[in-house]
Amino acid sequence: MRYLANEAIKAAAENKTGVEIEVSGWVHRIRELGGITFVVLRDRSGILQIVLSESLADAGKLTPESVIRVRGVPALNEKAPGGAELRAVSLEVISRAAPDLPYQVNGDIAKTGLETILDNRILSLRNPRITAIFKVQATIIEAFSAYLRGRDFTEIKTSKIVGSGTEGGTELFEVDYFDRKVYLAQSPQFYKEVMVASGLERVFEVAPAYRAEKHDTPRHLNEYVSLDVEMGFIESEKDLIELERGLLAHIFDQAARKNAGELALWNASVPEPSSLAKAPIVPYEEALKIANDEAAAAKKSGGSSGGRIFDINPEAERLICAWAGREYGIELAFVNEFPRRYRPFYTYPLDAGAGGSGALTMSFDTLFRGLEITTGGRRQHDYNVFLETLPKFGLKPGDFTGYLSLLKYGCPPHGGFAVGCERLTQKILGLANVKEASLFPRDRKRVEP
Amino acid sequence: MRYLANEAIKAAAENKTGVEIEVSGWVHRIRELGGITFVVLRDRSGILQIVLSESLADAGKLTPESVIRVRGVPALNEKAPGGAELRAVSLEVISRAAPDLPYQVNGDIAKTGLETILDNRILSLRNPRITAIFKVQATIIEAFSAYLRGRDFTEIKTSKIVGSGTEGGTELFEVDYFDRKVYLAQSPQFYKEVMVASGLERVFEVAPAYRAEKHDTPRHLNEYVSLDVEMGFIESEKDLIELERGLLAHIFDQAARKNAGELALWNASVPEPSSLAKAPIVPYEEALKIANDEAAAAKKSGGSSGGRIFDINPEAERLICAWAGREYGIELAFVNEFPRRYRPFYTYPLDAGAGGSGALTMSFDTLFRGLEITTGGRRQHDYNVFLETLPKFGLKPGDFTGYLSLLKYGCPPHGGFAVGCERLTQKILGLANVKEASLFPRDRKRVEP
Repeated sequence: MRYLANEAIKAAAENKTGVEIEVSGWVHRIRELGGITFVVLRDRSGILQIVLSESLADAGKLTPESVIRVRGVPALNEKAPGGAELRAVSLEVISRAAPDLPYQVNGDIAKTGLETILDNRILSLRNPRITAIFKVQATIIEAFSAYLRGRDFTEIKTSKIVGSGTEGGTELFEVDYFDRKVYLAQSPQFYKEVMVASGLERVFEVAPAYRAEKHDTPRHLNEYVSLDVEMGFIESEKDLIELERGLLAHIFDQAARKNAGELALWNASVPEPSSLAKAPIVPYEEALKIANDEAAAAKKSGGSSGGRIFDINPEAERLICAWAGREYGIELAFVNEFPRRYRPFYTYPLDAGAGGSGALTMSFDTLFRGLEITTGGRRQHDYNVFLETLPKFGLKPGDFTGYLSLLKYGCPPHGGFAVGCERLTQKILGLANVKEASLFPRDRKRVEP
Repeated sequence: MRYLANEAIKAAAENKTGVEIEVSGWVHRIRELGGITFVVLRDRSGILQIVLSESLADAGKLTPESVIRVRGVPALNEKAPGGAELRAVSLEVISRAAPDLPYQVNGDIAKTGLETILDNRILSLRNPRITAIFKVQATIIEAFSAYLRGRDFTEIKTSKIVGSGTEGGTELFEVDYFDRKVYLAQSPQFYKEVMVASGLERVFEVAPAYRAEKHDTPRHLNEYVSLDVEMGFIESEKDLIELERGLLAHIFDQAARKNAGELALWNASVPEPSSLAKAPIVPYEEALKIANDEAAAAKKSGGSSGGRIFDINPEAERLICAWAGREYGIELAFVNEFPRRYRPFYTYPLDAGAGGSGALTMSFDTLFRGLEITTGGRRQHDYNVFLETLPKFGLKPGDFTGYLSLLKYGCPPHGGFAVGCERLTQKILGLANVKEASLFPRDRKRVEP
């Protein structure tokens, strides 16, 4: 029976009889010291020090990253990682790694440029700090799904191949689909609304989304994992904000419980789950004022160039999160009531019932540690209002036949949001670039590996 | 506070004081009887009979599929669905459905053609039998993920945009990606192998996969949800078969527990989870013989046209499952040891270590109720053997640089499989066509809605 590295360490503490066990994994590091070879073996559970006598080390002709199987006796050694080691009795090389490693797996990734890391993705993913990113990401997806299932949400899987874009025709990747042109979906927006109106009422989806944006920034990916939520019978975006508070609290709680080791590798910590309740909801205009006040204060103390901020741009996102951290103890804020011009045409007006101008919308962004991680809002569900709205945005009913038939035959008030999975991962761990949080990131130049 | 339909029915049994409650949902059916209007209301929990006095019914001007909010008193009525009804006190129409419904939501879908159902997908998804399909599918995805997480598998999300196909260049959808051509991934095959070798060792993915196949059959989709598994340190495909036994048993167990109502709507049942242990493993040649013997027996009794079967085609799949059902009590069989010509070039040979011909492979298909639902196998992990193998298949090392760098630097023996989510859903419920198990199916002609 194969023992994992962490089981071998545990066995050392328990094993008083010197019973042999077997481990398998990758040669993470090789070090020689006075005729003895120390091998750090890496497997899915962690690392384990192996002590090889001279004859075994020679027999193995070890190279870094080779896959080996070792039999030996676990023993305590407080100088070894985890406080124990395996004293080898036999060694077998299962898969010998060529000695010309193009990328040093056990190196310090902080000293390696991102392009080098991504160019060597097949090997760089073996670095324990990099693997840790994706263990945290798996927890995010698990916790997201579990929380919503617990609240009667049904998981859906919708098509990523669409006849036209939800947000209009720009920024779409075109696909040759037999004898016609179709597009990769920018979001499951329309489909999740269909599923709310289907009677499922509450749905979520974890799936890729596509944006054919040409810019290359530390916050953009051309393909990302969208954590989508949609629910019926809401009053306003505030119902969605309350749902997301609980959702993020659960994700942070699970990450803290399941990924303590991974968080430690990045010197990172998640916000205290209970602090989510304190995160402020800030209307757009007020958020803009806060950002400008913060910028002015920073300028006074010489910490900012100090130009006026006219919308919630990346600088404003950073300033608002810093303000929330100082004032509320959590670097997270929900900015709501966005002006109409910043939101899709189907966003529900804030003052629809009050005979108001409809200048503001029932919409929100969630800013976390200086980055927008979520966009959401209530949607227009009234068929007649929707029809009246289209021409105001220069749109034609003929382009929205699907949407119109969705609303025409009984659609409850509803709304939803989407969390960028890679962005949330990035901000939990403090990664400099969102591409680090994508296993195989796609940007304008990169489609390999 | 809003009550759900099933909560209202429960309240009727408990409520002795005549307290008013509120429900919301869709008008599923309207029936008038002696001046009283009976409305069947549908929400995410099920259906509830509402009793409306004449004045309320008139005030509402009800149309089928309108979304309404009703206050009333729950009361027992053994003739009503669920044994209770709500006697309405007030009614509000939240969203009035236009009276020109192009599709009768509460109709009998058994009498409606599939094309009509799919052409009217936005409305047909409201039919409770159709919604039921996707509640079962959500359970499949949840149970698949939970079972694997419980066995130390890490969920991954890999790119669906690839520079080239894993299986060669055919049957790929081409995407315009900025100034180059890329493709939609046929499977995450290469990526899940990279993640096994990354040290995660055990990974799974739930994601769309694409096949640009032109044929239109009841068993094919051009876009489907692939339930992918890959694991390291296996000996043969039999380790994978044992994993899938447990996995399917868990999925069937969960579907039986969570979806009793949905299964009943389709007059369907899942196999007894414990029966998975009895499902036979049948080598390819033996499976072919069984299929031919079954066909011959059927011909004798006049039940088959009886031509010779030369490979595991759809007819053979049906015959082998019928045989397994009769002989082992479960209509499920694992066919393994496929001849080389039927499997991808990277499939591991069965007799590699015995100096054999390599004519058979460590591969398997899972057949369930007459349909292949899974394909899997062990993969070649030896760099030198892989390099030697390529020319035998007319392939060049230059086309497999990613694969080669995966194997060159330490790769354990590994393998995996993929379950077609829609096919498993189809066979659990006994659907005639796999398209019924896709929310928004894509075929050669259909990319809307």
